[in-house]
Amino acid sequence: MPASPIRKLVPYADAAKKKGKKVYHLNIGQPDIKTHSIMLNAIRNFSLEVLAYSHSAGMESYRKKLTKYYKKYGIELDYSQILVTTGGSEAILFATLSCLDAGDEIIIPEPFYANYNGFSIAGGVKVVPVTASIDNGFALPPIASFEALITPRTKAIMICNPSNPTGYLYSQAELEQLRKIVLKHDLFLFADEVYREFAYDEAEHFSVLNLKGLEDHAIVVDSVSKRFSACGARIGALVTRNEAVMATALKFAQARLSPPTFGQIASEAALDIPSHYFNRIVEEYRSRREVLIEGLQAIEGVVCSKPKGAFYVMAQLPIDDSERFCQWMLESFEYKGATTMMAPGSGFYATPGLGKKEVRIAYVLNKEELKQAVICLAEGLKAYAKVMA
Amino acid sequence: MPASPIRKLVPYADAAKKKGKKVYHLNIGQPDIKTHSIMLNAIRNFSLEVLAYSHSAGMESYRKKLTKYYKKYGIELDYSQILVTTGGSEAILFATLSCLDAGDEIIIPEPFYANYNGFSIAGGVKVVPVTASIDNGFALPPIASFEALITPRTKAIMICNPSNPTGYLYSQAELEQLRKIVLKHDLFLFADEVYREFAYDEAEHFSVLNLKGLEDHAIVVDSVSKRFSACGARIGALVTRNEAVMATALKFAQARLSPPTFGQIASEAALDIPSHYFNRIVEEYRSRREVLIEGLQAIEGVVCSKPKGAFYVMAQLPIDDSERFCQWMLESFEYKGATTMMAPGSGFYATPGLGKKEVRIAYVLNKEELKQAVICLAEGLKAYAKVMA
Repeated sequence: MPASPIRKLVPYADAAKKKGKKVYHLNIGQPDIKTHSIMLNAIRNFSLEVLAYSHSAGMESYRKKLTKYYKKYGIELDYSQILVTTGGSEAILFATLSCLDAGDEIIIPEPFYANYNGFSIAGGVKVVPVTASIDNGFALPPIASFEALITPRTKAIMICNPSNPTGYLYSQAELEQLRKIVLKHDLFLFADEVYREFAYDEAEHFSVLNLKGLEDHAIVVDSVSKRFSACGARIGALVTRNEAVMATALKFAQARLSPPTFGQIASEAALDIPSHYFNRIVEEYRSRREVLIEGLQAIEGVVCSKPKGAFYVMAQLPIDDSERFCQWMLESFEYKGATTMMAPGSGFYATPGLGKKEVRIAYVLNKEELKQAVICLAEGLKAYAKVMA
Repeated sequence: MPASPIRKLVPYADAAKKKGKKVYHLNIGQPDIKTHSIMLNAIRNFSLEVLAYSHSAGMESYRKKLTKYYKKYGIELDYSQILVTTGGSEAILFATLSCLDAGDEIIIPEPFYANYNGFSIAGGVKVVPVTASIDNGFALPPIASFEALITPRTKAIMICNPSNPTGYLYSQAELEQLRKIVLKHDLFLFADEVYREFAYDEAEHFSVLNLKGLEDHAIVVDSVSKRFSACGARIGALVTRNEAVMATALKFAQARLSPPTFGQIASEAALDIPSHYFNRIVEEYRSRREVLIEGLQAIEGVVCSKPKGAFYVMAQLPIDDSERFCQWMLESFEYKGATTMMAPGSGFYATPGLGKKEVRIAYVLNKEELKQAVICLAEGLKAYAKVMA
């Protein structure tokens, strides 16, 4: 497995911090939002005497409660259609292993979440990228581009909606296009919907589980990590109405015995968090997005559109190579004792050479810090231009 | 993946319980031992505001403290040689994916822990069994039997020591034999040592990490699940001095982001549990073993030897087919309102047809219940013989 350009930067960040430099971490999706006390109290009140395995598919009480959560989005499920996983990561792994054999192909719009590569390598699966364009904010590429890539080994299309790393929120019309091609070629449609709640500007998330006729095709990857700012709980879910896929996924689940018990207890409690809490969180991210995008668009040579979902943006910078630039920002630059860390765009593309001028920026800091981070980036770009001249 | 004969029984157990029958669960390794308050209190005192990802390789403080734990067993490690995993299960998965390619072969003495199959299927790896015999208590098969199975695709030998399902504890002399063959053919030696502490009758566990010259070959799978009766924590470890393997395993670890945070906090605290606690637990299991083995050996036609480790025994019963018998015990038999559930032996063999007269019995119940469970089994065998006659 090749080393990710994002992770290659970590030692440089560590070195910068050792030297006393402040690093604005816009490189990762670790929110600073406090985990809700309802979740933490559930753990503090843990009263069982034996910290035992749960059911391999997750605690029945949690799975049943999850059906009510999905119902709020118009998604009717039986709890047997939900398999609790160790983070969204394991749901991706199980989906891959259950639906694709070694040598099979999965088409994914790029840029995409870099870790999809890792799970495909684990399953011996070939990732076939279809390139989305920064010019239309990374909208769904034309369906003809998907069609051109389909081979007898193609078994699935995967999307992340809203998208990490682009923040793009697919419209229902785009999803209907995917529905058609998936049915035409009898493919699975994997949808990573872990950012479901993070939709802005009156836009609404539409789940692939609500696409008609995809009962056997739609596989949703879910997670509590971002939704509840509980990344360390390591609780996700694989959701599908396809019984054969669920039966196979359950066997992989049984081989690893059970998802974490504490995380499940916290996640079950999280479903009692009142909806006004979410409204506040979503509003917080929305306003951070304003600060970030305004700041970025004010920098000469920076190209980015305002994403409608998640908490990321892919921005094109006036630079030669974002891997080099991001490393330089950590190693050789500081402004008022600080620097800004971003994720190089190339890490999100499977096609070699793409994304070299792009960076992914996560707006996971509070607005004041975000402002400073963008100023620091602007100053860095100026200084970098001089160094490169 | 074929359905495991062990899991096929679960619906029959559920049905029996619904009818009000008591089921003695000797079929699984879920201990009834209370989780130590040191672990649970660490969780109850969780004071962080954000339940964040940990480092992908695990919390540094925990890994450093683990080096002290291993040192007690004479195993000198740097914390970078320990990767914290989501249960021992994930350590097996990472070891398999990091050391073997699809199509490669791994030799495992059978009977073996049934879930090894699942991880091999995930990695496209072929499990090649070498059969151990109940007649010598499942000692290491002659090295010539291993040698005869080695092909150009053989990349590893895997043992579980002390063994689930046999309870066999490999002697240092046996491990030295493995050392030689591993070096001769340049293979990896995977050792699942999660039952390290559970060694009886003055026998001492010897780790493959203490075999000389195996720095690049030895890969240890570890877990807190049984050691601390904390199966639900889902915390294990992959331990190796092979830097290339560790670097690859770390990439798989990064793809799944991090092991569970709560589980790590509890597991780090567990390292403060005083050693007299272990002495008590080991003594408890030892005395349960006496009750179980005495009871079994008193039943006519039952063959089993006294295992020196873990908390399992593979026993041969006077029956035609243990899958049928175990199902019958749940469906059609009861004694004083109860029945005994065991794991059919065939589930632990890769060679078709083997283990049909064997069952795995876990001594995870208290002595009084264990006694009743064995009486119930004895009565069941009598009744089954009549039915079959």
